[in-house]
Amino acid sequence: MIVAGGKGLRMGGDIPKQFLPVKGKPVLMRTLEAFHAYDAAIRLIVVLPADQQAYWKQLCQKYGFTLPHRIADGGETRFHSVKNGLALVEEDALVGVHDGVRPFVSPDVIAECYRSAEEKGAAIPVVDIVETVRRISEDGGSETVPRDRYKLVQTPQVFRASLLKQAYAQPYVPAFTDDASVVEALGHRVELVRGNRENIKLTTPFDLKLAEMLC
Amino acid sequence: MIVAGGKGLRMGGDIPKQFLPVKGKPVLMRTLEAFHAYDAAIRLIVVLPADQQAYWKQLCQKYGFTLPHRIADGGETRFHSVKNGLALVEEDALVGVHDGVRPFVSPDVIAECYRSAEEKGAAIPVVDIVETVRRISEDGGSETVPRDRYKLVQTPQVFRASLLKQAYAQPYVPAFTDDASVVEALGHRVELVRGNRENIKLTTPFDLKLAEMLC
Repeated sequence: MIVAGGKGLRMGGDIPKQFLPVKGKPVLMRTLEAFHAYDAAIRLIVVLPADQQAYWKQLCQKYGFTLPHRIADGGETRFHSVKNGLALVEEDALVGVHDGVRPFVSPDVIAECYRSAEEKGAAIPVVDIVETVRRISEDGGSETVPRDRYKLVQTPQVFRASLLKQAYAQPYVPAFTDDASVVEALGHRVELVRGNRENIKLTTPFDLKLAEMLC
Repeated sequence: MIVAGGKGLRMGGDIPKQFLPVKGKPVLMRTLEAFHAYDAAIRLIVVLPADQQAYWKQLCQKYGFTLPHRIADGGETRFHSVKNGLALVEEDALVGVHDGVRPFVSPDVIAECYRSAEEKGAAIPVVDIVETVRRISEDGGSETVPRDRYKLVQTPQVFRASLLKQAYAQPYVPAFTDDASVVEALGHRVELVRGNRENIKLTTPFDLKLAEMLC
């Protein structure tokens, strides 16, 4: 399930960032191709705001993009978008939820997330933090924290579909920033898998320049 | 004070990473030029392992690099390297400590760090974290933490020299991962300034590719 909810505001332009071209092809197409390259039999779902779906279909025609995929309506928040997409997923499947603007996930990382989720029910890719990390305290001060105790979370976040559906049946709270946090609210543990450094989330013009280089 | 202690192991090669060329010029020269571009009157100190200094001088000749700078001996850890460099700094100066492998710091960020340190005594540049952040707990489990409460720390870390010298007179402990943490151990607060996204620390082959793009 590829979630593409971006309104494109942070890019400063009118085109939502999932549609911006990288080396001549919209990011979202590259992301779908990454999963197709991992497993040509994988069933793809794209979650898109309703008012972007006609534009997406035009883009697919224009670029001759023919990978089969179903489309679900994006919701008010990422939580609601994923919940909509889950309605299209069978109870006994494994489901990977992935950001539409992360086209550089490696096949190995996808494979390891699925393998680990099959065994343990829930797995997400994480990478180390290279920089010193500070925590901002309530009073506006801040302090250094041990960076080896922190990880940056990527996607795909992969789950047994039955578990993820149960998790998304919970009422929404703002602390649900990713799928793992929703599953953990059930009390279920999430396995950490090593992500790939290039698997960046394209959110700024800087990232787009970087993406051109990575293609 | 530009601290270049890298043994180059993480790059997998024999050349310490501060000497690796980016667009045909060693990273360390580009870093020194960034500070010279901010203020041509700034006094530059390079802290280098003793066994790399002859090689550095050869490089300066080879590349016709003529920016005046003094050299201090690198120590066993970054703490000891900075302490050695501080011996060359006047008590009433402002001193900025910067990673030798961060050539892309912007003049604005350098200026704001110096301005803030002049006023408050201690200032460091930080950037937001785009990804979801997890904290690893003692038992090997992990949990999502609110990412807006965390920042990634860059350099230059700028201080009144008298304060930094006092801080570095403390006995070394491993929790001293950057200059700010050493100063805070005195009980002195450190101001946070907005860093620039491009100001990355070049530590992996991936970063070097990125650096080629940013030049």
